[in-house]
This record gives sequence, C-alpha cells and structure tokens, in this order.
Amino acid sequence: MKIYDIRAPNPRRVRIFLAEKRLELPLKAVDVGAGANRSSEFLEKNALGKLPVLEQDDGTCISESVAICRFFELKYPNPPLMGVDAVDQARVEMWNRRIELGLFRTTADYFQHSAPFFKDQFVQLPAYAASAKASAETELGLLDEALEGRRFFAGDRFTIADITAWVAIELGTPSVFTLQPDFKNLMRWHAEVSSRPSASA
Amino acid sequence: MKIYDIRAPNPRRVRIFLAEKRLELPLKAVDVGAGANRSSEFLEKNALGKLPVLEQDDGTCISESVAICRFFELKYPNPPLMGVDAVDQARVEMWNRRIELGLFRTTADYFQHSAPFFKDQFVQLPAYAASAKASAETELGLLDEALEGRRFFAGDRFTIADITAWVAIELGTPSVFTLQPDFKNLMRWHAEVSSRPSASA
Repeated sequence: MKIYDIRAPNPRRVRIFLAEKRLELPLKAVDVGAGANRSSEFLEKNALGKLPVLEQDDGTCISESVAICRFFELKYPNPPLMGVDAVDQARVEMWNRRIELGLFRTTADYFQHSAPFFKDQFVQLPAYAASAKASAETELGLLDEALEGRRFFAGDRFTIADITAWVAIELGTPSVFTLQPDFKNLMRWHAEVSSRPSASA
Repeated sequence: MKIYDIRAPNPRRVRIFLAEKRLELPLKAVDVGAGANRSSEFLEKNALGKLPVLEQDDGTCISESVAICRFFELKYPNPPLMGVDAVDQARVEMWNRRIELGLFRTTADYFQHSAPFFKDQFVQLPAYAASAKASAETELGLLDEALEGRRFFAGDRFTIADITAWVAIELGTPSVFTLQPDFKNLMRWHAEVSSRPSASA
C-alpha cells in the first residue's frame, strides 16, 4: 500500500491519523504545482485529481481523507479513533462532520475565495470570502462551548474529530482567525493536542 | 428511540435509510416555521438547532444524518448500506462524501443563497448562487460518468451513496438542473432508485 500525498490540510488529517495508529506507509509526493494530479495516470486513481489517495497493492484506490481513515480504522482498530460501540461511533461521526462542515469548510472556503493560489480554479468572490471568514469565527466560538467540561470533542478519548478541528485551526491561524484567550476550553484543548507526537506528521 | 423530523432533504436521507433497513421509528415533527427548533428544550438535543436528531431512550441525542445512519448500520447490519469489508466500507464512504460535498452541497448552497425561505438565515450572495448552480450542473455530469458500467455508485449494491445522490437530485430538480437525456447512466440509475419502495419515505 502507498499514499499519494501533498503538504495540505486533508492529506495532513490522514498523516496524523496514521501516526496515532503507529502505522508507517510509503508516502508518494505528487507535484500539484506541475500539474501531476491532472495527468491521465493520476486521474485513473482519482477522477477528481485530489489528494490524498490510498492505493492498495492490487491497484484499488480510495480517495477522500475520512474514507481512507475508515479503512485503517477497520483494519487496525487500536487505538480506536472513530469510536467504539454504536452510540460512540455515531457520536464521533457527528462531531467530525459538524467540525468538518463547520470550521473546516468555512476556513477552506475563505482561502479558495481569496488566495492567489486558487484564482485559476475558482470564481473567487470577495464577498463570499468575507462571509466565510465571519462564519469561521462563529464556528470557533461554538467549538469552545462544545469543549466545556470535556477533554476532547467526543468525550474522554482523542478521535478523528480532534484531528479535523486541529488541522482546521492550523489552517486558519492567523489569516482567518486567532485563538483568543477568551476561548479557555479551546486553548487548553489546543495545547494538549499540539503536544501529541502526531502533531508533527 | 425517536427521531425529530421535518420535510427536508437531510431528514429524508435518514427516512430512506430506515425504510431500506425495514425499521420503523416514531417520527416527531418539529415545527421549524414556528421556531420550535430554536427552543431551549430542542437546543439541548442539538445545539445547532438542526434536524434530524435521533434521541435514545436514555436521552442521548445524535445529530447529523450520516451519523444517525451509522448508528443504525451498526445496530442492524442487514441489509448493509455502508459497505461490508474494509475496502468496501471505505469505497462507500468515498462515494457518499464525494456526492455530499459535490452535488448535494452545491445544490443546497444554491437554495441557501437564493430562496426567500433562507433570507434571514444567510447573507445571500446572488453571484455565489449562480456559481453554485453551475457547479451542481458540472457535478451531475461527473456522476453520470461515474455510473458508466456500474449499477450503483459504489458497485452492485445499493448504498447510502445512492440515497445521498437521489435526494440531491430530487432537491435540485427542476430549479437547479434537469436530468438531461444525454445523461443515460444517470437516467437509468434514477429510474431504478425511484422505483424502490423507500423512495416514498
């Protein structure tokens, strides 16, 4: 197995997930700047030309970060990062989706609608970028509230929801938002997650 | 257990999922028009005020449609709607996410940025609505290509990815797009999925 990789937030989610599982896979860098992700060879692996992609030894390819994480969770259940029993798995999925469709999406939208890197890929709308930035700040406040009295988003255990939130915060700081000292819960959580060895993955 | 419900696309995904599992749960209608989803009682169940919400008999609440589906998939594995082995589960998740973050998101974005119903909830940007509509049309073409030589999105088996795509198409037709006869694969797939008893859920 190997993973087609790039230094970007979604591949980073998978790298952190693997580090938490203590799994080491060959990472094959794809030169997106040179258009390698648009080659016919790569589009066979993922028709959307996006990264990361997990390639099995038989050539089967899985894309979408959370789908790749799901594969490793099922193959290597320990430590569990996507919940244990049915209610817990559903709770982790709820938090991961809420954070992904909230903070992660709005932060990424801000960059897609404002960063020069994306100007040829999207019709950039400055008014939408401004709206996304304001939404990201709101989402950050909601996450601070969610962490009141809880060590991690889904409870006592570190999960994929924490990975998604941490990567979104790394992406958004400082261009989109900064972690205000008022966000006591989020500051405490962020310090703990940042100190995990997987944070350097 | 009960589900807090409303006639809207995300709750519909859960209703179809339950119908495919042959599960019948009490559905409790929430009067969103009257603001019942913003009551302190409901916000205790889902701080975001969104539907659907699954409430367990012990009061535990799970929101986010796919997280609710995950719970029922784990409790009632047959028929499987989220894949079987690790590769298959990852493939289903890949397709479900691709469709949700593609066709479903862009279609919903169009309405959020153009429909009078949403004018008090969002800063509506007509330019963004137009961009979302164009993206939804592009996504529809990609889904037609994806169904070439395949009965369902993730292969031979009907899955949650088909539910997400079908609900998105019901939502988008005819305001955002229409299924063109050119989309032969999608037309064939749509006719088959529409004929399933769960389509009326």
